[in-house]
Amino acid sequence: MVGVDYPPEFLANPRNHRTRPSLYVWTDEIAFVIDTTPEFRMQLLREKVRRLDAVLVTHGHTDHIMGMDDCRRFCWERDGGLPVHASPETMAVLRRVFDYAFSGRPIPKGYFVPDPRVVDGPFELGDLRVTPVALPHGRTTCTGYVFKQGGRKRLAYLTDCKTVPEAAMEVVAGTSAVVLDALRPQPHPTHLSTAEAVEVCSRLGAERCFFTHLTHDYDHDVDQAKLPPDITLAYDGLQVRVSEDGVTLSP
Amino acid sequence: MVGVDYPPEFLANPRNHRTRPSLYVWTDEIAFVIDTTPEFRMQLLREKVRRLDAVLVTHGHTDHIMGMDDCRRFCWERDGGLPVHASPETMAVLRRVFDYAFSGRPIPKGYFVPDPRVVDGPFELGDLRVTPVALPHGRTTCTGYVFKQGGRKRLAYLTDCKTVPEAAMEVVAGTSAVVLDALRPQPHPTHLSTAEAVEVCSRLGAERCFFTHLTHDYDHDVDQAKLPPDITLAYDGLQVRVSEDGVTLSP
Repeated sequence: MVGVDYPPEFLANPRNHRTRPSLYVWTDEIAFVIDTTPEFRMQLLREKVRRLDAVLVTHGHTDHIMGMDDCRRFCWERDGGLPVHASPETMAVLRRVFDYAFSGRPIPKGYFVPDPRVVDGPFELGDLRVTPVALPHGRTTCTGYVFKQGGRKRLAYLTDCKTVPEAAMEVVAGTSAVVLDALRPQPHPTHLSTAEAVEVCSRLGAERCFFTHLTHDYDHDVDQAKLPPDITLAYDGLQVRVSEDGVTLSP
Repeated sequence: MVGVDYPPEFLANPRNHRTRPSLYVWTDEIAFVIDTTPEFRMQLLREKVRRLDAVLVTHGHTDHIMGMDDCRRFCWERDGGLPVHASPETMAVLRRVFDYAFSGRPIPKGYFVPDPRVVDGPFELGDLRVTPVALPHGRTTCTGYVFKQGGRKRLAYLTDCKTVPEAAMEVVAGTSAVVLDALRPQPHPTHLSTAEAVEVCSRLGAERCFFTHLTHDYDHDVDQAKLPPDITLAYDGLQVRVSEDGVTLSP
């Protein structure tokens, strides 16, 4: 965190150097990102991302959207705008913040051209069936996303939530890989704490859960060792493969 | 740039790895930043910034403002909000984009609390006298800033401009160190090109000019060698000291 001194052994672990949470998902048919953080451009460069067919947004808080203009690079070769999927509440924030892009006015070549797609129920995204779930996050409702491929629940992304309500639990149950908010050990009014997230995971029956949106309170390797074996503390650059063969991690 | 391959010798030079332009200025009395880019948090961490007393904004384009929420760290120990100086046009953009912060509603501890200060003429900032100048940048008017200390013009920051109009030239003339937009060698409709910026510098009589807002068209060391000796291509992490003894650079 800005303005804080850390012990050298903490800084020596690259997994303790965190940018804001975002997920890049790709299948044989589509490549998309969930959330565009302020550091989105740095993340794209780090991961050498060359393809982006869509953006999904969980909610309109600054740490999840402020890098969206850097999608411009992926608008150059498209016919039409880049699909941006968001709930009505979130889309209203995007329209306000990025008004020059969402205004519907003609946009010169080279700039960000979104194609807004309001999420009001399940939708298709390439070879995936996407089901949104509503998650309480203070005064905001965050949208979680559950991805089915070939009829199987492969992935769920549930960030920025104080709880996972029963309606969402039913949709998520049985998903292979679940990415879940677990802000910090201490309780927080709008995020799941570590213990709360562990409890949610125990009820989901996922093959593997990944904790995300982690603060500097986590010392990655120290805190990883305290968690059940089916829970992984996510880190910048973590890649996860979800297939018939199960959930595998690299590097 | 995202999605572009570069030769290994280009990437080997750290001065070819650029984040978006921002300037941190400090004197014995005050420390402030000009613009808060999307990568602002990464820049604060890289430079180990521990103090921020104010923010000056040049204009409301995304590459200059989207990191502003990360000023929150510097709002914790303050009585009152963090002064944010911007022209009426730019302040209107800030109010729209960061409406939760600029609304005037009470803000919980830990979050970004701005104290908006509309720039409508010269103002004092610590031991500096700041004079704004209007710079044409397409449909936007960008605000340049000229800083006097002890009656001497020490620094001018003139980014995102197609020209430096005569009225601004008169204010800037005789400034020790001038930071100037020089987007790329090729002409651009809203930015100074290299040749245009060199021409502006030749009329300013500054001790030293620094070119900023540089695209990947610049190969730092190759293009530096083509410039007059009083012009420096800026790079991430460049530090400049302006004093009675002149303008000195490090590292």
